[in-house]
Amino acid sequence: MEFLVESEYFNRAITDVSKAVSQKTPFPILSGIKIMATKESLIVIGSNADIIIEQVIPMEIDGVQVLEVKEVGSVVLSAKYLSELVRKLPGKIHLTVNEKQIATLKADEIVTTLNGFHAEEYPTLPSMEETTHIRMQSTDLIEMINQTAFAVSKSEARAVLTGVNMLFEETKLTCVATNSHRLAWRELPIESGVSGAFIVPSTSLHELTKLMQKTTGMIKIFATDRYIVFKTNSTTLYSRLIEGNYPNVAGLFSKNARTMITVNTKQLLKGVDRACLFASEWKNNNVHMEIKDGLKLKITSNSSEIGKIEETQPINKLSGETDLSISLDGSFLIDALKAIKEEEIKISFGGTMRPILMEPVGNNSYMHLISPVRSC
Amino acid sequence: MEFLVESEYFNRAITDVSKAVSQKTPFPILSGIKIMATKESLIVIGSNADIIIEQVIPMEIDGVQVLEVKEVGSVVLSAKYLSELVRKLPGKIHLTVNEKQIATLKADEIVTTLNGFHAEEYPTLPSMEETTHIRMQSTDLIEMINQTAFAVSKSEARAVLTGVNMLFEETKLTCVATNSHRLAWRELPIESGVSGAFIVPSTSLHELTKLMQKTTGMIKIFATDRYIVFKTNSTTLYSRLIEGNYPNVAGLFSKNARTMITVNTKQLLKGVDRACLFASEWKNNNVHMEIKDGLKLKITSNSSEIGKIEETQPINKLSGETDLSISLDGSFLIDALKAIKEEEIKISFGGTMRPILMEPVGNNSYMHLISPVRSC
Repeated sequence: MEFLVESEYFNRAITDVSKAVSQKTPFPILSGIKIMATKESLIVIGSNADIIIEQVIPMEIDGVQVLEVKEVGSVVLSAKYLSELVRKLPGKIHLTVNEKQIATLKADEIVTTLNGFHAEEYPTLPSMEETTHIRMQSTDLIEMINQTAFAVSKSEARAVLTGVNMLFEETKLTCVATNSHRLAWRELPIESGVSGAFIVPSTSLHELTKLMQKTTGMIKIFATDRYIVFKTNSTTLYSRLIEGNYPNVAGLFSKNARTMITVNTKQLLKGVDRACLFASEWKNNNVHMEIKDGLKLKITSNSSEIGKIEETQPINKLSGETDLSISLDGSFLIDALKAIKEEEIKISFGGTMRPILMEPVGNNSYMHLISPVRSC
Repeated sequence: MEFLVESEYFNRAITDVSKAVSQKTPFPILSGIKIMATKESLIVIGSNADIIIEQVIPMEIDGVQVLEVKEVGSVVLSAKYLSELVRKLPGKIHLTVNEKQIATLKADEIVTTLNGFHAEEYPTLPSMEETTHIRMQSTDLIEMINQTAFAVSKSEARAVLTGVNMLFEETKLTCVATNSHRLAWRELPIESGVSGAFIVPSTSLHELTKLMQKTTGMIKIFATDRYIVFKTNSTTLYSRLIEGNYPNVAGLFSKNARTMITVNTKQLLKGVDRACLFASEWKNNNVHMEIKDGLKLKITSNSSEIGKIEETQPINKLSGETDLSISLDGSFLIDALKAIKEEEIKISFGGTMRPILMEPVGNNSYMHLISPVRSC
């Protein structure tokens, strides 16, 4: 195997796939990155128990040659040393691998050798039928993930709740995440050739959003029973799926509100953030909300040890009962308010012990539920 | 006590003095910040066992009123909660303290109370005679600290080596730091009204450089047996001194070099940084240097497990013997090379087991010694 590659692109591909590689794996070969030089491109792969990331460097980028393959072949090299090394090498890198799997990397007057592994020992990728897939804007997908994935459960006690449930139907995609105390729901109209529900680990989706940060084009999604694959021109992420049945959440969005208010999203976020100052002294970050004089929202939090904080904010619209008093986990409120871009939100209260429903005004594709906590 | 202050300036002062405050102190009052409102200004103080930081907010900044004191007085408030709170309060803050030492902070429609301590219980500041002091440019002082403080010992085994020795003489200031394996020495001509040597903890100097990052004016320095004080218009840092005798280092700079080379500073830094890739597998980050063909510097590092790296760099000037071979701690080399701004450096080698001397070309105010390690 022998090729020349611009260090800039090689570095970027290695950095991206390194995110999937764990140094703690019991199999030394999985702490490595698989590099394959073919006649068309250079393929770089990193993986762990949950995800596989593949990056492709073509011969040319924007009409400039960045890769020259002199001899096709493959090798697996330590992710840790390869990524540190390539980051520090200037200009063009000339990589050759001998029959002992020792790679030599040359750049200017710098010569490095790295002991490698036989690429045959690296696990093969899951096989996928690319024929049935969904295409959507990567920015749409990232937004859906950002608006839901934070709400998953951090506890492995119910594994299905550590993932985001992605439900593909003929005309729409729905993402749901919950930790059973709060729930985020997001819908998007798409034309889907695939139907089915897939529980995707939030950690995989988190990696995906990081990988796709600068991507603006289309993304293809296809799935099997055990894997879901997200693919752009240069990047492919395979994620395992979580097995099990996701709870049915359709019945949770009760429309029987006792009180409904409309407030400014950012202002409420700032107020709750301030109230959380003392809320951290509580088990559930208790922040208390009530309606004052029938026209203002009063947000309070206190700790007998340290002090208290209290502020009032205008309510833009109010309907229903005005004797509202409820305690909520301030960190859940902050997460939800950060996920909403719209200027105003509508909050529906069903009663002191009923979950509140938050929806952006003028957008019915997002809903968020938060269960109250007992106030003392 | 009652005053109104612009939150921007109050926040900045509290953030700065908070750096001195430890939450782990056994005395609750020391986890607080002392606030004093006088007729002229607002004084904010934070401290720990090593340093005290004092910030002064005047009535006016750039001709704009930022402070209005309605009733003089003082209080001590929790550093943790005060700094988090003030960062989140908008506009002007109205602070009042009642007879129970409960502070009320109001901003817009936000009302907060914080339980405080009696200011009388806060330790008094060390008294200083400001009459004999040194004045120097703060940027000069910061540069001297940045070029030396990194070289101190991290081990408390010899306490004096954890500090920078600041030697004030009539016409110059000299700073020296060493961990007994490497030594940094920097000199600056100043007119000094003070004479004496003071061992200042590197941690205090590190805080000082952070505090002074955006300062460009003059700094006053004065000292007693137990404290050294650095003072600008708005900021004062008191640091305890380390007791003991600092080793005499004057005899260490041997001028009997066997080989002297001049090389490009940045290029050597990059090369050593690359060589450190495998060097971390060694106990002492071994990087090996030798002269190749009498005209090039060869830098190598290897690990039998992982691989090896080798590069050659041009030598700009060479005098003395050309059979040089020495192993050094790569991290010490990197630290020293980063401290030198000049384009070229001269390195003097006394032999395989003698310390090397590094000096910037065209500047004899900085010297750096590094002892070799045994190569295997």
